Amino acid sequence: MSGARRIAIVGLGLIGGSLGLRIRELGLARVIGIDTDAAVTKRAQERGAADETYLDVDRVGDAEVIVVAVPPEHTVAVAREAAAHALAGAVLTDVASVKAPIVTQLSGLDRVRYVGGHPMFGSEGRGIDAAGAALPAGHPYILTPVASTPHDALNTMLMLAQDLGMRPVLLTPDEHDRLVAEASHLPYLLALLLNFGTDPQARDIAGPAFRDATRVAGTPPDLMVEILRLNRVHVLAAVDHFSEGLAQMREALARGHIRQAVRFR
Amino acid sequence: MSGARRIAIVGLGLIGGSLGLRIRELGLARVIGIDTDAAVTKRAQERGAADETYLDVDRVGDAEVIVVAVPPEHTVAVAREAAAHALAGAVLTDVASVKAPIVTQLSGLDRVRYVGGHPMFGSEGRGIDAAGAALPAGHPYILTPVASTPHDALNTMLMLAQDLGMRPVLLTPDEHDRLVAEASHLPYLLALLLNFGTDPQARDIAGPAFRDATRVAGTPPDLMVEILRLNRVHVLAAVDHFSEGLAQMREALARGHIRQAVRFR
Repeated sequence: MSGARRIAIVGLGLIGGSLGLRIRELGLARVIGIDTDAAVTKRAQERGAADETYLDVDRVGDAEVIVVAVPPEHTVAVAREAAAHALAGAVLTDVASVKAPIVTQLSGLDRVRYVGGHPMFGSEGRGIDAAGAALPAGHPYILTPVASTPHDALNTMLMLAQDLGMRPVLLTPDEHDRLVAEASHLPYLLALLLNFGTDPQARDIAGPAFRDATRVAGTPPDLMVEILRLNRVHVLAAVDHFSEGLAQMREALARGHIRQAVRFR
Repeated sequence: MSGARRIAIVGLGLIGGSLGLRIRELGLARVIGIDTDAAVTKRAQERGAADETYLDVDRVGDAEVIVVAVPPEHTVAVAREAAAHALAGAVLTDVASVKAPIVTQLSGLDRVRYVGGHPMFGSEGRGIDAAGAALPAGHPYILTPVASTPHDALNTMLMLAQDLGMRPVLLTPDEHDRLVAEASHLPYLLALLLNFGTDPQARDIAGPAFRDATRVAGTPPDLMVEILRLNRVHVLAAVDHFSEGLAQMREALARGHIRQAVRFR
């Protein structure tokens, strides 16, 4: 057990809501749910994602662990505000899917012990209505400690990840950002281009393979824009690496060396 | 109803086997199943994909409709052999997923009335064991008539497609090849590159979106090699169109114009 008796979740969207549902379903801790949108806190209560809900971030003061689960452009500001009202020594973590720019700004936070994190689950929906207690199960929970990260705070997060039934993975913030550029951000861009760059008649006759290949293009664009902005350097590198591979493949096809073009198999 | 009382299916793999299972399940016609592999005809009998099975293509002579469902590199030779033994005036169709090079060679066939076709269904498996009566349902059945295609033969195929519960679509052979290059062959190449060009650690932390995006990379490579070879010109055009889009996207990202980079949404 992570040892936390009370976990505050700030931001009750898909990720925060799902963590709340799961923590409560597993009886891991009491969940203090915070969201500035009263309609969201009401829905979180109805769905059972929190034991108590508030609109103000100053209500984090009861919790030993604070999870900041807001969109990435708000993560730093909300984390700072939460830290100012936190129990001294509380563990504070965020869930942003880009880490280096955020970890850099939050590692020196006063009062709290910060550990960067990225629980890698999701769904096609968004918001509290798309949250589900089962969504986190079995997925990687990436933690991105730096030299100044206190060991006991990291251990608290490792235990929480395991208690949630997730797979903890330690990466440096930079390594995390490089890998998610390849695993998430590049596939999103390719799916977007494939889906919206393709002749509508081709989409019409396309089979399930095409729909599978382009499903991720349905990710909410405003969320992805901010993530791509924050992770631009790694995304560009991943695009360049892919483009190089595609150019080699094209040349092999053009020369009639089909087996060489699909040499990966 | 297509009017055929007996349909011969030459090649009892995933496509031929599924068509046989569906025709029999719907009671559309008696199915004469032909495959040169005795293990396949045995399995087709066991699974109920044919009423009677033979190893020799000369047994097509009883059928009003002959479906050649062999790998594309064998389509022309097998279709010619089947035509030589066919009932005079039988409708002969093939299922190859590249049409122009095959339609050109088969349109002048003697004895039979040829209609190029491409029933666009599949599964992740292959062969008679992966066949299923439900697989064709709801998918497009592309037919590629040319000027010399007899109208009544085309009508027979239109009715058969509808009887199968598929969605008939008429395209010129060239238009078909252009559209499947975009809808099937390009997505396959991208998935291959994404899957096998990605850092194994990135694949390890990747979520279901990555697995969806790369699922089609599991298509049997020897089948795809022949399809890519036959459809090379259109595949190269699709790759070039995609590469251009990716380069534009990259430049927008590099300049920090993230919304422009994902402008499709």
